[in-house]
Amino acid sequence: MTTTVSAIAATSATAPLTKTTIERRDVGPHDVAFDIKFAGICHSDIHTVKAEWGEPNYPVVAGHELAGVVTEIGSEVTKFKVGDHVGVGCFVDSCRECEQCKAGLQQYCTGEGGMIGTYNATGKDGTPTYGGYSQATVVDENYVLNIPDSIPLDKAAPLLCAGVTLFSPLTHWGAGPGKKVAIIGLGGLGHVGVKLAHAMGAEVTVLSQSLKKMEDGLRLGANEYYATSDPDTFTKLAGKFDLILNTVSANLDMGAYIGLLAIDGTLVELGAPEQPLEVPFFPLAGGRRSLSGSMIGGIPETQEMLDFCAEHDVTPEIEVISADYINEAYERVLASDVRYRFVIDTATL
Amino acid sequence: MTTTVSAIAATSATAPLTKTTIERRDVGPHDVAFDIKFAGICHSDIHTVKAEWGEPNYPVVAGHELAGVVTEIGSEVTKFKVGDHVGVGCFVDSCRECEQCKAGLQQYCTGEGGMIGTYNATGKDGTPTYGGYSQATVVDENYVLNIPDSIPLDKAAPLLCAGVTLFSPLTHWGAGPGKKVAIIGLGGLGHVGVKLAHAMGAEVTVLSQSLKKMEDGLRLGANEYYATSDPDTFTKLAGKFDLILNTVSANLDMGAYIGLLAIDGTLVELGAPEQPLEVPFFPLAGGRRSLSGSMIGGIPETQEMLDFCAEHDVTPEIEVISADYINEAYERVLASDVRYRFVIDTATL
Repeated sequence: MTTTVSAIAATSATAPLTKTTIERRDVGPHDVAFDIKFAGICHSDIHTVKAEWGEPNYPVVAGHELAGVVTEIGSEVTKFKVGDHVGVGCFVDSCRECEQCKAGLQQYCTGEGGMIGTYNATGKDGTPTYGGYSQATVVDENYVLNIPDSIPLDKAAPLLCAGVTLFSPLTHWGAGPGKKVAIIGLGGLGHVGVKLAHAMGAEVTVLSQSLKKMEDGLRLGANEYYATSDPDTFTKLAGKFDLILNTVSANLDMGAYIGLLAIDGTLVELGAPEQPLEVPFFPLAGGRRSLSGSMIGGIPETQEMLDFCAEHDVTPEIEVISADYINEAYERVLASDVRYRFVIDTATL
Repeated sequence: MTTTVSAIAATSATAPLTKTTIERRDVGPHDVAFDIKFAGICHSDIHTVKAEWGEPNYPVVAGHELAGVVTEIGSEVTKFKVGDHVGVGCFVDSCRECEQCKAGLQQYCTGEGGMIGTYNATGKDGTPTYGGYSQATVVDENYVLNIPDSIPLDKAAPLLCAGVTLFSPLTHWGAGPGKKVAIIGLGGLGHVGVKLAHAMGAEVTVLSQSLKKMEDGLRLGANEYYATSDPDTFTKLAGKFDLILNTVSANLDMGAYIGLLAIDGTLVELGAPEQPLEVPFFPLAGGRRSLSGSMIGGIPETQEMLDFCAEHDVTPEIEVISADYINEAYERVLASDVRYRFVIDTATL
């Protein structure tokens, strides 16, 4: 017994995405069923459906930024009730037993198979997981987030991936008053990073290829905005930042960017470049600097992020689209032509 | 008025090192003059004299692991007296005013020109600095270390660079009981790292190309010893280490080594590879792992290291040589044919 729901699927790496239907499991004792109202489009959706991160299991119903309203709860569910605003991010389950899961860092689950992705993975019941480009889903309550009422659901969706992807390293590496934080790239990730870092009280600088989006950057909370196409930027800002978050997936001149870090500073890679990063030794060693990686966030910190966003009125800038605009939206994401995140209105499915 | 002392100098990138004489300045009010009894040979001496790190200022009198006995002190000197056992490491001065100098991290001095190297640099008096391959020197007391009596001077010498190069990252990244530490390479740096990490109470693993030096490694304090030429090593040890110190200057498969780190683990580069490190994104991000650099240590932590070594009976394994063996010793360092550090007996100069 399953429920049939409308969805958008990719059937190959090259074919346009098309409407289809998928099955959702019945609500188990620990499950929460919810109508997906909005689903964000993340660049990694595109990487996955285009088979750029390996051959996915087609059909792929992408989307790991889900926001909706609870329609049914299992008999044992305690955390949610019908009508609640809820969200799901990049994963829908994990081993629950490893050190990381116990510490609430499910994104780094080291159990057999690791965390179970919201799409293009296999659930514990052996069926493929399908993501947010659909009308409804069923997820174990332990992997569902509470969306505070003050955050509109369309704006909540991108927080579930983009939001926590920035929130987690900002908090882990101590962004706050007295800290100088730079965000490389003012896109879907970067613009949320600027808002979050500003709300945390850090001094925020945007490092963007050009000054094209400077007005936006300053409005979103940046104190300073520099063009990285100008070599003077790297002289002027040398040794300045305690923390740099790189949201750009292009391969940058790492030596130049590491040189912008203060002593003991950290540059965190979030942007998943295709080629290995080329990291010269001396800029790292000459200042005990670090190059680190970070991947989304665990369930507790995702909830903490949503609560923080509600408290500090941090929401992404979005463009809501209808389902049949998906292929054009993908093209525009690839062309960096969106300010700053597409969100699918799933009522149009 | 200066003092003439015997020394070993490199006069070009290719000529053999030869004996010569150099001038040492008179003892100023804050200076300590000491007879150098022993000087360690560090691989970076060879990089410098062979112009592999840029064209040096010939003649180069290398050596930044100096151990000796005080012969004269300036009128204002309070920290030392004639007859004291003292040492000097990689630098003999720094700006003293920047945040790093004030924090005792002189090796990361961000003042004009940074720290002043023990050789191949220009002192504050405008004259070239000459290092430890010589009979005596004069150094400001703030850059002189006290060598505890229980450490023989010949064994103390390599601690001034090799020792603190390992001690600093081990303490900075919290090596101690319950921590799993791996040392890549069992050479001049690595073997001191094994002894230090063991003395700190960490669980120590050596990762060496082969098992050739395994017996030594275990004797020096390693709990485990693995050959990195065996691919099984990387499967068996995946996700194991909190801290990995890489003392090897060859360019390694960084993805494989980063994969040996536990979640939140750090791999610290100490070995100054010539080519940039090629660092794949996913092993970093998939475990919030870090690649960091570290460079020697500041004056307070160098003293702390010497005191720690005295307390825990940690000394390097050395081969004492006479001055006229220097060129052969260089060849043997390049062939990794030394267990584990050459030390020049400067009485033979």
